[in-house]
Amino acid sequence: MALPRQSEDFPSWYQEVVKQADLAENSLVRGTMVIKPYGFAIWERIQEAFDERIKATGHQNLMFPMFIPARLLEKEAEHVEGFAPEVAVVTHAGGSELEEPLVIRPTSETIIWDAYSRWIQSYRDLPLLYNQWCNVVRWELRPRLFLRTTEFYWQEGHTAHETAPEAIAEQRMILTDVYQDVVERVMAMHVAPGHKTESERFPGALDSMTIEALMRDGKALQSGTSHYLGQNFAKAYGVQFQGRTGELESPYATSWGVSTRLVGGLIMQHGDDRGLRLPPALAPYQVVIVPIHRTDDERSRVLEAAAKIVAELGDLRVKVDDREEHRPGYKFNEWELRGAPVRLELGARDLDQEQATVVRRDTMDKSPRPLGSVAEHVRGLQAEIQRELRRQARAFTEEHTIRPGSYDEMRSFLVASGGFAIASWCGSGECEAKVKAEAKATIRYLPMDPVRPEGPCIVCGDEGVDAAAWARAY
Amino acid sequence: MALPRQSEDFPSWYQEVVKQADLAENSLVRGTMVIKPYGFAIWERIQEAFDERIKATGHQNLMFPMFIPARLLEKEAEHVEGFAPEVAVVTHAGGSELEEPLVIRPTSETIIWDAYSRWIQSYRDLPLLYNQWCNVVRWELRPRLFLRTTEFYWQEGHTAHETAPEAIAEQRMILTDVYQDVVERVMAMHVAPGHKTESERFPGALDSMTIEALMRDGKALQSGTSHYLGQNFAKAYGVQFQGRTGELESPYATSWGVSTRLVGGLIMQHGDDRGLRLPPALAPYQVVIVPIHRTDDERSRVLEAAAKIVAELGDLRVKVDDREEHRPGYKFNEWELRGAPVRLELGARDLDQEQATVVRRDTMDKSPRPLGSVAEHVRGLQAEIQRELRRQARAFTEEHTIRPGSYDEMRSFLVASGGFAIASWCGSGECEAKVKAEAKATIRYLPMDPVRPEGPCIVCGDEGVDAAAWARAY
Repeated sequence: MALPRQSEDFPSWYQEVVKQADLAENSLVRGTMVIKPYGFAIWERIQEAFDERIKATGHQNLMFPMFIPARLLEKEAEHVEGFAPEVAVVTHAGGSELEEPLVIRPTSETIIWDAYSRWIQSYRDLPLLYNQWCNVVRWELRPRLFLRTTEFYWQEGHTAHETAPEAIAEQRMILTDVYQDVVERVMAMHVAPGHKTESERFPGALDSMTIEALMRDGKALQSGTSHYLGQNFAKAYGVQFQGRTGELESPYATSWGVSTRLVGGLIMQHGDDRGLRLPPALAPYQVVIVPIHRTDDERSRVLEAAAKIVAELGDLRVKVDDREEHRPGYKFNEWELRGAPVRLELGARDLDQEQATVVRRDTMDKSPRPLGSVAEHVRGLQAEIQRELRRQARAFTEEHTIRPGSYDEMRSFLVASGGFAIASWCGSGECEAKVKAEAKATIRYLPMDPVRPEGPCIVCGDEGVDAAAWARAY
Repeated sequence: MALPRQSEDFPSWYQEVVKQADLAENSLVRGTMVIKPYGFAIWERIQEAFDERIKATGHQNLMFPMFIPARLLEKEAEHVEGFAPEVAVVTHAGGSELEEPLVIRPTSETIIWDAYSRWIQSYRDLPLLYNQWCNVVRWELRPRLFLRTTEFYWQEGHTAHETAPEAIAEQRMILTDVYQDVVERVMAMHVAPGHKTESERFPGALDSMTIEALMRDGKALQSGTSHYLGQNFAKAYGVQFQGRTGELESPYATSWGVSTRLVGGLIMQHGDDRGLRLPPALAPYQVVIVPIHRTDDERSRVLEAAAKIVAELGDLRVKVDDREEHRPGYKFNEWELRGAPVRLELGARDLDQEQATVVRRDTMDKSPRPLGSVAEHVRGLQAEIQRELRRQARAFTEEHTIRPGSYDEMRSFLVASGGFAIASWCGSGECEAKVKAEAKATIRYLPMDPVRPEGPCIVCGDEGVDAAAWARAY
């Protein structure tokens, strides 16, 4: 079935790509999803890339249970207020009613800091640099595959430090050296790092940082967050340690996470009217060979040549699509939709001319190549396509970022989902609320290396204290 | 704290090893556990080894949600009867009571076969060879860390096939080529493969196969199972496909799983009175270097020599335990307890003699080695220790397997938790029940390549139809 055009109906385009590329589908319980093999293979590679960086930066994985006694959630006031409306609650188990209801983790600060109260005794126990990959549950009213699901998959890092500067350095390091690095290098996406305003902060955090990615419909997607929690959780859960001077002190905390939502970001930042475009680093199949033949004799010659090329492609992930029930044209469309970086068309006539046809998914360039060097060419294309997707993502973001001269200009731009509008802001929640009411847009981030605000707040005209990037958002 | 001896109090020995080696601890909700970083690093390597084999044998990973509508569980009669008493139920979410309660998956046949009813239309869609790594919940009355926890982590494979022989071949292939292979090759354990009797079958299966491992207290641990489900789930969930002849047919199913329980098996099959013994393939640190020094000058010389050895050890996982607050003797004990395969003691006096002391955890052999070749020696030890642990596990199992000549002999052996007793069995549940009542032992497996039963049933004297391996079990 043909895809809707992005420019005509982006939400339907997204939904159809997820469905037709066989990435995921809705499951029986509202808001839950099945991640299908092709989609899960992409997520596994994303996970692997983050896991490697998380470990390389000194963190260890562990695993906490998903059940949290309801009373535990209530100890940090802002936190419970933020999450209580979203939690799922187990009231019965093993055939009878539980004495105390259990909350399924919406995030794990509470149960982890309760454990840290036993694990942290002395400054020698610090820092604790721990992470877990797990499922979490937040009841969603308007679920959307990958972007907002009731159950989703993520990693959550939870660290404890002796001093505030150490914790703040960790929070920033995770944002830039882990999250931004992997998202840009491996996912070939472009993101802007920055701080959240108070109204968008994680419940219980003193500072939330974010990487924000612009989707092809001009809306922003919060793609990863890193929080500095100060001593809030340490104090709420009674965590104290003997410091170097012998005094009892409270440790400083960070928490940070990226989730399956990133798959949605990948689709919406790279995809085009033909469907997905996958960076080679993540593609389940980096090369798809489509054999073209009419007779049995042609078929065996072509498949033999395909097998030879597969061997030459070595450790690249290659699929020979030799399904009998579909014609080549159908397969071309399907692998364009599913985002395979390179398609190799191999026909009997090509063989006679000692060549194969190579099609790049990123540019849709199509060119014949001599059989003798096609493997080498295709191998070289992988890094090139990775770079090109990254370049396009950055260019798109830059082309859709403005510095408006007036509030009217900004509002029109935001109402039309034009992208990021970066402008001076006075720091007040009232101005945020006004833009939200009039343009359905929020401050996505305050640039990390602050762009000096130029002139007065674009909304109210009072003194500007920060540059702020506004956009509509998912 | 000193460990209890295995021979005096095996359960306490187990509990203390888990605690003192910092593998896991109980969490707040009864029966749930926190897997700590050292334990989780072991589990991650186990997972990785299985995942690699599962993929190499043609399977793909995907992910189903953990929430199953209660009505869905009820469609396969035996299955619901088996699992209903153990499930945890979500009744409230998002601030209000749910219209229909949700069961948290105790296993996923029900939700997966419901999806297969949409995914399978034609014989061309078969086989489906899918697997997922996830958490499951079964309410446990007598929880024990790793062995039986309310929430545990596992992989569950769910395949659908055109014919019964294909499904049965898959069931056996998983048991021997994936499970037994990884458990023996990577975990260095010894297991016996076989079939379960009807009374021990998975609810809804036509045949359950198992790998059973003997622990050092003579009790067996079911370490992995692979089930042939026939058409039970296909029929319960209305899965039909158009076969090669155009007729509508029901596919044949398998399901199979290994879990974090394997970590318990690893501890109890390899451990000794000093603590854990880890096979090098799984050890978070394959080599621990303990520097020994009294003066600052000695310290810097020793740490310099240690750094040189670390570099020479290349990609081995090495830890230099340079904690200041503990003496070398403390560290020796701790790393013996935590099962590091090789300890390298490096003192100033050793350096003067151009040597280091190498201690093998498997044999506790201790020998000096010239500094110039110590890295090469330690590297070679890895494969040797892996083999030796495997050899010891096999030898222990063989030494604790008897073929009793009489029922009395068998009963006494089983009552004393002597190991496996292999004897003829008439196939009746009455004889199984009698042994269970009189010796608290069950048939752990019917050997896969059937040992011809010799003579009459050891329990009742009727004709023997199978050889059966009895043991007490976890």
